[in-house]
Amino acid sequence: MAGDLLLKNVRPLGGEPIDVLLREGRIAPAGAPGGAAEPVECSGAILAPGLVEAHTHLDKTLVGMPWYRNEVGPLLVDKIDNERAQRRLLGIDPERQSARLALQALAFGSTHIRSHVDVDTELGLAAIEGVMATRDRLAGVVDIEIVAFPQSGLLVRPGTVELLEEAMRMGSQVVGGLDPCAIDRDPKGHLDVVFGLAERFGRPVDIHLHEPGELGAFSLELIVERTLALGMQGKVAVSHAFCLGMADPERVAGLVELVAEAEIAIVTTAPPSRPVPAVRQLARAGIVMAAGSDGVRDTWGPYGNGDMLERAMLLGLRNNLRRDDELELALEVCTAGGARVMALEDYGLEPGCRADLVLLEGETVAEAVVSRAPRRLVIKGGRIVARDGRALVEAA
Amino acid sequence: MAGDLLLKNVRPLGGEPIDVLLREGRIAPAGAPGGAAEPVECSGAILAPGLVEAHTHLDKTLVGMPWYRNEVGPLLVDKIDNERAQRRLLGIDPERQSARLALQALAFGSTHIRSHVDVDTELGLAAIEGVMATRDRLAGVVDIEIVAFPQSGLLVRPGTVELLEEAMRMGSQVVGGLDPCAIDRDPKGHLDVVFGLAERFGRPVDIHLHEPGELGAFSLELIVERTLALGMQGKVAVSHAFCLGMADPERVAGLVELVAEAEIAIVTTAPPSRPVPAVRQLARAGIVMAAGSDGVRDTWGPYGNGDMLERAMLLGLRNNLRRDDELELALEVCTAGGARVMALEDYGLEPGCRADLVLLEGETVAEAVVSRAPRRLVIKGGRIVARDGRALVEAA
Repeated sequence: MAGDLLLKNVRPLGGEPIDVLLREGRIAPAGAPGGAAEPVECSGAILAPGLVEAHTHLDKTLVGMPWYRNEVGPLLVDKIDNERAQRRLLGIDPERQSARLALQALAFGSTHIRSHVDVDTELGLAAIEGVMATRDRLAGVVDIEIVAFPQSGLLVRPGTVELLEEAMRMGSQVVGGLDPCAIDRDPKGHLDVVFGLAERFGRPVDIHLHEPGELGAFSLELIVERTLALGMQGKVAVSHAFCLGMADPERVAGLVELVAEAEIAIVTTAPPSRPVPAVRQLARAGIVMAAGSDGVRDTWGPYGNGDMLERAMLLGLRNNLRRDDELELALEVCTAGGARVMALEDYGLEPGCRADLVLLEGETVAEAVVSRAPRRLVIKGGRIVARDGRALVEAA
Repeated sequence: MAGDLLLKNVRPLGGEPIDVLLREGRIAPAGAPGGAAEPVECSGAILAPGLVEAHTHLDKTLVGMPWYRNEVGPLLVDKIDNERAQRRLLGIDPERQSARLALQALAFGSTHIRSHVDVDTELGLAAIEGVMATRDRLAGVVDIEIVAFPQSGLLVRPGTVELLEEAMRMGSQVVGGLDPCAIDRDPKGHLDVVFGLAERFGRPVDIHLHEPGELGAFSLELIVERTLALGMQGKVAVSHAFCLGMADPERVAGLVELVAEAEIAIVTTAPPSRPVPAVRQLARAGIVMAAGSDGVRDTWGPYGNGDMLERAMLLGLRNNLRRDDELELALEVCTAGGARVMALEDYGLEPGCRADLVLLEGETVAEAVVSRAPRRLVIKGGRIVARDGRALVEAA
């Protein structure tokens, strides 16, 4: 590890300019002697804790590959089936692709990534193995957490449960799930497997829940029941949760209460074309919210680049956040919120926290979010890992 | 004017690479002798007609000014009242600000801009005069069309009608209107004034219609009636038209038929937090659609940068456009659609068209839209006016 750094003239979350000493990979107490620390002039840039990409799919991005012409049909199942076919045809290598996207995300300031990684009966555990190799190779550069994710269904494809179990045994950190009704057609069976594995391996859960309206509300209730029954408060995340955006304020208010009681975190990608959980409403209810890019330039869709500051902007646009204090909330979702979902220890700007940091350009946090200027510096464990929008580590 | 240009190795809208000669400010026929034209190597970049910013507010952007901390209340009237107050407090100079934003938009590839410009009893015609000065100064660099826009209401503020009339007499090109029910509280009176001025000055109409659901549908019907009665088919645009995004497919289908019959164009900013007209539905009905940034970094909200390629991406995200052919539609809305709304003559890539062009990076149009790389070249009237994302003309 390189030596200590003294960040000169940074403004923590847009506050007054100070110098911040990074010593042995952590933030030193204010006024600690700098000693031989290397000074880095930061010219009043905003200091924020590292961005947290809390929902992406590192294993199947096409970043760095030739452009994929998308001619896929309109249904969810069209996209799932097409993806399995294209994985073979295009030669999407999970190790190579995950490294490319992880480093691109790092260049945009994400120091932590939660990635869902496909497990199915065609692919087996190849994607898990590939992303694990990247996770290990990039340890200390960008932290990657792996969710074993039954993208093609769990019970509808016999053999998947065993693969998911093996993925956990190999060292996946989170048990994934997907639309217990709409995809697996057996919500009780699906959730019993997911929560059963979580209990057995002592790991958290993160379930994709695209199901809209009352269908999603039903699945969400089942998730709440199991979370409470197993005492898993604080260990369950629901991604997307479109049902919390449905057009029935009273029903949504009731669900929000349940989610808050079960201490379930909600992870959103803030898609402009779907109903979404309302950030301000969930924040008022004390629910932990995180955000993610979802798939980045893959066979599902062409969008995305892994920039969580752009995601904060999209979160703001989707939730009609206009005031400066509201955009501070958007950034909080993309930093501290993600950190809570990933149960990161020692995350933040307090003395003693790990020096996982990003420098943002702007007079205020709001300006930084809407401007999305290239990140001047990204720091991981006290070491500079990206500069002026470029990672200092090479992908394979 | 500089001499002729020979664009070497460009791919018109992503097609096969060819050379394109620009002669005397226009696109020359294929195979025309290049003569002394200066060759410009374009390395396979995508050639598109200039982007068209069909709905913005050049007069009140804060681009280039100190960051404005937004603490405004939630209502529409809060934003309108705050803006009138801030205009004085912040010293928002319409001439200076419109030039800044117009040149920023140009650097992003917009060769044509329709700007609504505020007219009210406090401001008088100062904003119209300021943007006119910019329009004249930048003639030949970026074309600006001015909509005289009663932002604070027309009939609710006595004296505004006379000012709007004077704005038209001074040379505003389009008569603007705003929420005939919600703001002016007198839909018949409002629309009679707007269409009366249009008839008298022989100019087109562009009406902001934020009114949601049935209220907006009612106003839209009134607009259709007047368009048909006055024979103004093809000369009326409705901006926003949130009512076309309401959750009643049959009602919307009926409105879409009316809009198509009256040949009314719909201009959208594709806001992620509002119901919006569905791009595919309107395209199928043969309705002309255009897009715009709306306000860019102003007292209404912090978002926006004037990049119409980013707007095409947001249009795609808002309408869940994923396929390559769908993103081609998004770009078409931001180019040819805007050109039809602005009634531009000789616009496009055909021989004889004016050489108002932009070079985009990407294998396909879809990749160009989602990547939004800095524009390599922007050409106006056959002359290079921006390069690598920077305008070659200075703001005041």
